[in-house]
Amino acid sequence: MLFQVHMHVNVPTHIPAAEFDEIKAREKAYFQELQKAGKWRHIWRHVGQYSNTSIFDVESNAALHDLLMGLPLYPFMDIEVIPLCRHPSSIHDDDR
Amino acid sequence: MLFQVHMHVNVPTHIPAAEFDEIKAREKAYFQELQKAGKWRHIWRHVGQYSNTSIFDVESNAALHDLLMGLPLYPFMDIEVIPLCRHPSSIHDDDR
Amino acid sequence: MLFQVHMHVNVPTHIPAAEFDEIKAREKAYFQELQKAGKWRHIWRHVGQYSNTSIFDVESNAALHDLLMGLPLYPFMDIEVIPLCRHPSSIHDDDR
Amino acid sequence: MLFQVHMHVNVPTHIPAAEFDEIKAREKAYFQELQKAGKWRHIWRHVGQYSNTSIFDVESNAALHDLLMGLPLYPFMDIEVIPLCRHPSSIHDDDR
Amino acid sequence: MLFQVHMHVNVPTHIPAAEFDEIKAREKAYFQELQKAGKWRHIWRHVGQYSNTSIFDVESNAALHDLLMGLPLYPFMDIEVIPLCRHPSSIHDDDR
Amino acid sequence: MLFQVHMHVNVPTHIPAAEFDEIKAREKAYFQELQKAGKWRHIWRHVGQYSNTSIFDVESNAALHDLLMGLPLYPFMDIEVIPLCRHPSSIHDDDR
Amino acid sequence: MLFQVHMHVNVPTHIPAAEFDEIKAREKAYFQELQKAGKWRHIWRHVGQYSNTSIFDVESNAALHDLLMGLPLYPFMDIEVIPLCRHPSSIHDDDR
Amino acid sequence: MLFQVHMHVNVPTHIPAAEFDEIKAREKAYFQELQKAGKWRHIWRHVGQYSNTSIFDVESNAALHDLLMGLPLYPFMDIEVIPLCRHPSSIHDDDR
Amino acid sequence: MLFQVHMHVNVPTHIPAAEFDEIKAREKAYFQELQKAGKWRHIWRHVGQYSNTSIFDVESNAALHDLLMGLPLYPFMDIEVIPLCRHPSSIHDDDR
Amino acid sequence: MLFQVHMHVNVPTHIPAAEFDEIKAREKAYFQELQKAGKWRHIWRHVGQYSNTSIFDVESNAALHDLLMGLPLYPFMDIEVIPLCRHPSSIHDDDR
Repeated sequence: MLFQVHMHVNVPTHIPAAEFDEIKAREKAYFQELQKAGKWRHIWRHVGQYSNTSIFDVESNAALHDLLMGLPLYPFMDIEVIPLCRHPSSIHDDDR
Repeated sequence: MLFQVHMHVNVPTHIPAAEFDEIKAREKAYFQELQKAGKWRHIWRHVGQYSNTSIFDVESNAALHDLLMGLPLYPFMDIEVIPLCRHPSSIHDDDR
Repeated sequence: MLFQVHMHVNVPTHIPAAEFDEIKAREKAYFQELQKAGKWRHIWRHVGQYSNTSIFDVESNAALHDLLMGLPLYPFMDIEVIPLCRHPSSIHDDDR
Repeated sequence: MLFQVHMHVNVPTHIPAAEFDEIKAREKAYFQELQKAGKWRHIWRHVGQYSNTSIFDVESNAALHDLLMGLPLYPFMDIEVIPLCRHPSSIHDDDR
Repeated sequence: MLFQVHMHVNVPTHIPAAEFDEIKAREKAYFQELQKAGKWRHIWRHVGQYSNTSIFDVESNAALHDLLMGLPLYPFMDIEVIPLCRHPSSIHDDDR
Repeated sequence: MLFQVHMHVNVPTHIPAAEFDEIKAREKAYFQELQKAGKWRHIWRHVGQYSNTSIFDVESNAALHDLLMGLPLYPFMDIEVIPLCRHPSSIHDDDR
Repeated sequence: MLFQVHMHVNVPTHIPAAEFDEIKAREKAYFQELQKAGKWRHIWRHVGQYSNTSIFDVESNAALHDLLMGLPLYPFMDIEVIPLCRHPSSIHDDDR
Repeated sequence: MLFQVHMHVNVPTHIPAAEFDEIKAREKAYFQELQKAGKWRHIWRHVGQYSNTSIFDVESNAALHDLLMGLPLYPFMDIEVIPLCRHPSSIHDDDR
Repeated sequence: MLFQVHMHVNVPTHIPAAEFDEIKAREKAYFQELQKAGKWRHIWRHVGQYSNTSIFDVESNAALHDLLMGLPLYPFMDIEVIPLCRHPSSIHDDDR
Repeated sequence: MLFQVHMHVNVPTHIPAAEFDEIKAREKAYFQELQKAGKWRHIWRHVGQYSNTSIFDVESNAALHDLLMGLPLYPFMDIEVIPLCRHPSSIHDDDR
């Protein structure tokens, strides 16, 4: 089941840069694990923004919630979630 | 070069249903031609909305503009365009 | 899987009242069938508005989409969809 | 009398984590007491958000106000209140 | 139980002026009956707008809903409802 | 001359609670003096919010400005002012 | 007593141009009479917009309301009203 | 050449009151010099707000920019600029 | 003196296509005359929108207003005007 | 390929003025290098704002992203990006 998630990171000013770098490193590892597992289907950076559009392929609403709450950068993110479904005009049976 | 486009269709009330169906049929053919050509990389329907999120892979801003202005449903659409680029954390060289 | 849907009906001025009444009657029948089936879990009217908050219990995003597109009043509605999940503090295993 | 309340928690950065955990524990106890009493009818988490949609069943506006002002997390919440009433199409006499 | 209601009238262009005048006359009679009954406690016109702020004193959410849906001008109104309660600093036991 | 004022208090986090309590005590005394004098005609609390709707009866715009700037809680308030006048349908000569 | 009023005219498409020109001529005469009387103190056109900022000097809220409701173009206007008072730093006793 | 400027002051919490008073004193002197020179044509306080509407009469866009950047309170202001011109209906040749 | 103008065209549905094409032809001629005269310095199309960003070089606010009101497409446009000035970091004396 | 970028700088209060001046000096050098290289085609200051409208001429979305992320003032900026293309009515083959 597909969901579009828009993530925007607000870089904090009350945390030392080294500590924030460490959080970003954990975020990258967490992301790549999910990307390899096929759950984090796509990610694109928005030009000029500390933002991305991501496409998730998960089993349920609850699975997506747990996945997002586990993001190391979650405390610094504004998040928007849009449930998706296959477009009826698509030539692919399962456009992921 | 990748772009995210959000399209929302406002179904008109001043056009006969048969005429609008004919426009939708032309839209579907136009879309499938571009999907096969690899220019309209992805399309997902928003649940409960007459809206989609699409990902385009085009050569230039001008190419995307011409492609969008040619949509048979364009006169009935609200459109938002977000230029994208590869995310630095992705494990894929070219995440399209 | 639970979804909150906010529906607002814009009463049309370009359709005869009798025709709109007939659409509302079909909406009511469609709603009651889904309520009996347990898919349309809750519906509450917003005081002073032609709006409601509904809770749906469906198998997938696609099932919700098909259900909403089938609403006889859909062409006159503004719709907002919020995916939900169980609250961790709830004393109920499955708060529907 | 039913009310829909949307609660969003802004996690504070100026309070030690242990102190905030203690506040959340009191919030959970306060919530479960009201849930058992039938006043806090429903609660659902919004996917990917520190937000919930709640349905309250209280005697009066004043009762709801006192209940909400007593939330241990109230100082960190944005709150929206929508008065509800029974939907005329419902097959239930009292849809709570 | 008190509610603040903000009403804004959108004067229609698709109805003959005489017909709209007749609706306004029915609105005035409906309002004065409720004002005499003490249910429509206050009404004030917003300077320069076809809008008012009204205070209602009703038994329940449902009573307010029925009252508002019965407004002859309802089909032309945008309505906002704010549930109120007594202010703790007031020197009056029941500030209506 | 009547004005509707919406006041919302943003509770500060950079002031000791005892100091803020002292400011609230002065606010209450200031309010009650104006309520007795008939200048602060009405005040109602918004359910679930640290907000109120107030109706003022003052001689001029300048009198209202001086009154509002004198509020002990003013530095923590968002304020909206709506000039009012008697509604032509009212059965009261002077609906205050 | 001074008020700032922002007026925006939505040129109608359902009225013959000659009829709208006649309304604009009456608007101009109405405006000039109030300008001569010193009640419509200032008017400035917004560059590139069918909008103006006006300053009114009237005796009361009610006087401003009656004046604005009498504008021949009122049915086509969006109006915003801001009550003003003398600025404490001004070197003029009565800056009108 | 005339411009309308809306200024809103956000009173800072991180600066000692005495220091902010000194900035306000410099703002007042700066304002009065420009008022005497005829460049700051009008200023009106918004009732209940730390805001004003000002009318400037300057030679060019650049002159207005330099004048506004020189405001001692500029770092604490939100500013909106609207270019104005003479209204065609005015009975004055040069309504300043 | 430079101004940025954002223009968005709302294609009308109540005018025959041939008539609208004739207006667009007059718009193009009007634009090219001003472009040659150096008053309409720049124009860029927004990708996927019936919108442009234009830069005007005119003598005064009034000159820009007259120029914009003369646009054949003006009745169908939403327009936003931003007064500009030279950036202090630019290596050009007069960046037009 | 052309892009319009709106940049707004939020002057920080948690950084010493000397440190911020040093960042601004690096921003100026970075800007002038890109201006000389023809990539930062235009920059205009918004009157009365710490904002500018810039036009970039770059090879790709990714090139623009890298350029913007390298701005020394980037951590203090709100940025909006609008992809542009040549306007069909322009008399210039390549309006940059």
